[in-house]
Amino acid sequence: MSEPTIGEIRQASERIRPFVHRTPVLTSTSLNHMCKAEMFFKCENFQKAGAFKIRGATNAVFALGDKEASRGVATHSSGNHGAALALAARWRGIKAYVVMPENAPHIKRDAVASYGAEIVFCRPTLQAREEGLEKVLDRTGATFIHPYNDYRVISGQGSAALELCEEIPDLDIVMAPVGGGGLLSGTAIAVSAISPQTLIIAAEPERADDAYRSFHAGRIIPANNPDTIADGLRTSLGDLTFPIIRRYVKDILTVSEEGIVLAMRYIWERMKIIVEPSAAVPLGALLAKHMEFPGKRIGVILSGGNVDLEHLPWTN
Amino acid sequence: MSEPTIGEIRQASERIRPFVHRTPVLTSTSLNHMCKAEMFFKCENFQKAGAFKIRGATNAVFALGDKEASRGVATHSSGNHGAALALAARWRGIKAYVVMPENAPHIKRDAVASYGAEIVFCRPTLQAREEGLEKVLDRTGATFIHPYNDYRVISGQGSAALELCEEIPDLDIVMAPVGGGGLLSGTAIAVSAISPQTLIIAAEPERADDAYRSFHAGRIIPANNPDTIADGLRTSLGDLTFPIIRRYVKDILTVSEEGIVLAMRYIWERMKIIVEPSAAVPLGALLAKHMEFPGKRIGVILSGGNVDLEHLPWTN
Repeated sequence: MSEPTIGEIRQASERIRPFVHRTPVLTSTSLNHMCKAEMFFKCENFQKAGAFKIRGATNAVFALGDKEASRGVATHSSGNHGAALALAARWRGIKAYVVMPENAPHIKRDAVASYGAEIVFCRPTLQAREEGLEKVLDRTGATFIHPYNDYRVISGQGSAALELCEEIPDLDIVMAPVGGGGLLSGTAIAVSAISPQTLIIAAEPERADDAYRSFHAGRIIPANNPDTIADGLRTSLGDLTFPIIRRYVKDILTVSEEGIVLAMRYIWERMKIIVEPSAAVPLGALLAKHMEFPGKRIGVILSGGNVDLEHLPWTN
Repeated sequence: MSEPTIGEIRQASERIRPFVHRTPVLTSTSLNHMCKAEMFFKCENFQKAGAFKIRGATNAVFALGDKEASRGVATHSSGNHGAALALAARWRGIKAYVVMPENAPHIKRDAVASYGAEIVFCRPTLQAREEGLEKVLDRTGATFIHPYNDYRVISGQGSAALELCEEIPDLDIVMAPVGGGGLLSGTAIAVSAISPQTLIIAAEPERADDAYRSFHAGRIIPANNPDTIADGLRTSLGDLTFPIIRRYVKDILTVSEEGIVLAMRYIWERMKIIVEPSAAVPLGALLAKHMEFPGKRIGVILSGGNVDLEHLPWTN
């Protein structure tokens, strides 16, 4: 399989259309004032299963041939991808196996279980997770759907930026957060094809700045067990996402933990919508450098809205 | 001035259009499942100043003649109406005076102050509030804009339901919360004119059920210092709102405090939007009687989204 083109992203968009939401693009006068720019927020927090992840998972699941699909799909994830894959598998009527660390929060387990997936618990180490997955694949013959290092997943994630560019033309900049790079690389392919003059800028927590360092070093520098509130962005770049990011992304901005929480709170307070910390990272990076893009039209992908409402970062 | 007609509501809608948002109508598959009905949420939590109140305040402020307006506007309010009037006055370039109890939360004071109003503090009693307002009116010659017992305010509030009925035709039911009855009476006039077959149903906290009791007694029974988390619904019906409500409203449902918090949390979790407790009262009432309207198309006005994010009802 070769690197996805805008054609594959359009195909993914068609394939997943019956299942996922075309999410709205919202604006906020007060955030525009804060950023000294014109912001357009693509609200993937309103997406099915609460995050953009359902786009890639659904594209991957429905791209499988019937025979392959009949054996089910599997992944390891303690986050949104596990729930997304479980839901996509249910839509196709096949089994999903999700390997999760035994200390995963109940709220995450419940989401995966509520979509009917079989959860396979493992000890909370990378090695145990990979061994757990191998065992599942051996036992079931299921197809492994990686959370981001998979061209079908990347194509699916790119459909959010496709919709954004269709709805809001002439953006000067499109921003996305970067963890493993699935969303960012799909976004980069879509935006650079549809709107070549638009700059693609990523944002990342300072405490999980492996993409920033990899980008500047020219090789993948893995994250070393990073400790950030932006739990969706703790993963390292993959060998499929990194080359795409190097080619299309103009810059990667980083933001402090305090900056992430502040931006998250601004989005809650001013826009009255719920986003998870990872989704607030681009706004946090912009606010930290608020004079950097004066007067620009900036599209921002709000990646998800899955937070534990019992434990908010500003009430601890 | 006589009772508003749909004509006055349309006029209000035109008058306030340059200033307020046409808010979106959102749906939620999972809330539909819970309610066994098809729900359409009119998102006034996304409105300017965070609540529907800006509609009535803006209509009242811009309906004034130039001479009257030049002396400013005044009100007493510890809630959303004070902030709304302050903002509407700023848009018109006139002064606003807001009488507030000295123990009003800082977050409410700050909102009013941030829109440039002059705050006049009084002791936290009804009598002190009314005396404080009288003094302001004597001193300034400002026009008193009542939070709900005012036909200009009622007409403005009705514009939300007008938009809802234009966007979603053939609703079986429209629901709104009831406190003083400004939103409900405006909603009732709009819906009964545009869609006569649609039932208008109100919802109210059990602990502030003065509208329920008044509705069944056929006369206004004032609320007696009610203690409910739905802080927007603690006021009593007015002599202008009550006759409209009696004529058009089919029923008033009540809901427990627990039911309000549960509904609020469902809206946050499932829809990923922030609503204040008062806005969750209609859904709370529906969920408490979830088989009452099977399969119906129900419009719900989500009245506002101003909450103190430091203190959420489920983290106490």
